[in-house]
Amino acid sequence: MIRSPDNDKLKTIRKLQQKRWRAKLGLFSAEGEDLVDAAPAAQFVLRAGVDVEPELLNAVSTLASGTRVIGVYRQRWTDPEGDLLVYLHGVEDPGNVGTIIRSAHALADAGVVLGPGCADPYSPKAVRASMGSIFAKPPARAGLGEIGARPLALDPDAERDLAGADLSPPLVLVLGSERGAIPEGLETARIPVHADSLNVAMAATAALYEVERRMRGHA
Amino acid sequence: MIRSPDNDKLKTIRKLQQKRWRAKLGLFSAEGEDLVDAAPAAQFVLRAGVDVEPELLNAVSTLASGTRVIGVYRQRWTDPEGDLLVYLHGVEDPGNVGTIIRSAHALADAGVVLGPGCADPYSPKAVRASMGSIFAKPPARAGLGEIGARPLALDPDAERDLAGADLSPPLVLVLGSERGAIPEGLETARIPVHADSLNVAMAATAALYEVERRMRGHA
Repeated sequence: MIRSPDNDKLKTIRKLQQKRWRAKLGLFSAEGEDLVDAAPAAQFVLRAGVDVEPELLNAVSTLASGTRVIGVYRQRWTDPEGDLLVYLHGVEDPGNVGTIIRSAHALADAGVVLGPGCADPYSPKAVRASMGSIFAKPPARAGLGEIGARPLALDPDAERDLAGADLSPPLVLVLGSERGAIPEGLETARIPVHADSLNVAMAATAALYEVERRMRGHA
Repeated sequence: MIRSPDNDKLKTIRKLQQKRWRAKLGLFSAEGEDLVDAAPAAQFVLRAGVDVEPELLNAVSTLASGTRVIGVYRQRWTDPEGDLLVYLHGVEDPGNVGTIIRSAHALADAGVVLGPGCADPYSPKAVRASMGSIFAKPPARAGLGEIGARPLALDPDAERDLAGADLSPPLVLVLGSERGAIPEGLETARIPVHADSLNVAMAATAALYEVERRMRGHA
């Protein structure tokens, strides 16, 4: 039972709150039963009252409420391959990145590719938002030019509705940040809206639903 | 220029962080230029450096980073009417409630009805997630029995896919919390998934997209 904050595992967990340490160690942490239960083999897992004094675990938690369990895992990165991918360009909010990883997994079993300017998918917030999909569908890092699939960019100013667009695989859906630009010169389609803006995670969700709907043979 | 934290307006803003004060006063606050710009007439607006010393405004902000402007507004509640509504049952997370209000507005110009056990849509987190849609589409509070439209509940265990369901208006989409139950005895449909769970905001987004798609005359 760990009884000192000077413990190496606790120190590692604290370091992993920082992007540069995550990059250096190639590790990340996940908090809470749901995430740890969904995870593959860990580097180590600390449970409050079993492996560590509860207050010491709370002290390295990123949650205001503290946590009962933290696991540390090796980061995995995949290649940008598959019949359907989601490519994110400049999506800076880690909650959106994690939500899109979850949505892509749940709705379409699709992988997410992180382009330039995206939040670290292994940050605590992104991991939490992914709800375990970060383990089931590890992300890829690549430029759009490195992806073989045909790109279709979601753009509110596009002339064509997504429902009328060619969505045949292999396809990569390209999404930018709420205020940012998407790469130029791509085929575009829009999600029809009544009000100004959808956030990028909602736009991704609607688009993935549409693609999957079509792949299932609905008109 | 307000130079004392004892100022009545600052005190009101601080009180409105609590649900019971929001209910008692019938008011709520919104922080940040985007929200305040999207708002109708305010009870009052405080701008850092114009109406109030910046540090005093930061002290009553709910954002860790502080804020440049806070407006206080009268809560508005509408009747549960319209061709398309979203009914939430036990959705406790204010971020999800706000996101669904935004999604319903953007994708389908639909109103949101809050049933029992839902988070306060006028809490700071919900207002922020709504991104101004709380002003454009104020929510309703009602029991499902008080709504005239035909209910269709989203249920992962339903036999029928949403894409094959009757979505003719007037319709009310019923969604429950991630772990909670939805009311019994309703017609149900599911969003086909590859992995365990969609969160309630993503499920609402996909469902609203499907309904709107159909209303636009796509098959």
